Amino acid sequence: MTDVIKHLNWRYATKSFDASQKLDEAKLNHILEAIRLAPTSSGLQPFEVFVVKNPDLRAKIREVAWGQPQVTDASHLLVFAAWDNITPERIDAAFDYTNEVRGFVNEGWEAYRKQLHGIIAARTEQANFDAAARQAYIGLGVALVAAAEQGVDSTPMEGFDPAAVDQILGLKERHLRSVVILPVGYRKADTDWLVNLKKVRRPHDKFVTELN
Amino acid sequence: MTDVIKHLNWRYATKSFDASQKLDEAKLNHILEAIRLAPTSSGLQPFEVFVVKNPDLRAKIREVAWGQPQVTDASHLLVFAAWDNITPERIDAAFDYTNEVRGFVNEGWEAYRKQLHGIIAARTEQANFDAAARQAYIGLGVALVAAAEQGVDSTPMEGFDPAAVDQILGLKERHLRSVVILPVGYRKADTDWLVNLKKVRRPHDKFVTELN
Repeated sequence: MTDVIKHLNWRYATKSFDASQKLDEAKLNHILEAIRLAPTSSGLQPFEVFVVKNPDLRAKIREVAWGQPQVTDASHLLVFAAWDNITPERIDAAFDYTNEVRGFVNEGWEAYRKQLHGIIAARTEQANFDAAARQAYIGLGVALVAAAEQGVDSTPMEGFDPAAVDQILGLKERHLRSVVILPVGYRKADTDWLVNLKKVRRPHDKFVTELN
Repeated sequence: MTDVIKHLNWRYATKSFDASQKLDEAKLNHILEAIRLAPTSSGLQPFEVFVVKNPDLRAKIREVAWGQPQVTDASHLLVFAAWDNITPERIDAAFDYTNEVRGFVNEGWEAYRKQLHGIIAARTEQANFDAAARQAYIGLGVALVAAAEQGVDSTPMEGFDPAAVDQILGLKERHLRSVVILPVGYRKADTDWLVNLKKVRRPHDKFVTELN
């Protein structure tokens, strides 16, 4: 068993967080750095992460998240917000930044930039948002492992009203849409109904098909 | 720096794979097991993974993937295929299996099952597919880390015609749709234009916003 598999077996969708236990900045930053390093399609990183500590904002989000206690009780609440559209300007910012960091302009890369402009122009805004949202989930997957590696609990949650969260956090003005939230912190095992239940996953043979 | 961050820094979107270097079964299985253990919304695991070794299938997929050489040259090609719809039957299969594994029926869980039936019925088939596709990307994120942990290269690729891949692999009949493919194997550094270029990610302050 590798460490990553150990981490994945250790973690679970924490239902009860200990509101008195705070994550230290170093651990939080490792999780954020892992998300930042996650690869994305064409290197666009078409999402942003909001770290919500403010108790008033957390209380408001909980109201539009079926009242789920993790939203307010976890140490920090991460909100993954995808670009509401993939625009030519956003593509150019990413490609220009790549040229700047690498210190040269690559012909193939520039040809691909043009191709990508064509692809996003041919899609609806909703399709571009959906493509961006998927990338945020790569970051989510990486974040879960990075948290568990440090003994930090986390619970991916889709059970909230995205439009309401966008309103609370002012995401629309930033041309972002919330897609998934991730409370991170420490479990309160004595009040968590899930902590001792067996992890359930479909067996390998119902999940993986080999085509030899 | 944590191990997960080291793995993420080590990996890159490998452009040239060494076709002569094969992944051993243990490493492949660790990657697949990590994907299987990845959490998904409501525990549905609404996707499957196809491990394509067959050279004819790989050649056909390459034809509908802009001719990208990774498709045929990597040791194995993983295809992530999401449920084409989230149906009541699929939900019930997942919930029934959970009850079977845990050995009891939980009242809250059963109430949630009913709620979920309502949610999926109120959405279009496309919206359900989109929700399923996002979950596959959690698995993708986890797979990348699990591969890198073992020194295995991997390249997430969306540059292919999903309908054509579905046709080649017979996914439609299985009510699945391909969403992303992941060649895994070993880099051929001397022919890879990207291997020595600097990894580019937006700086932390353009990616993360703290709301205190």
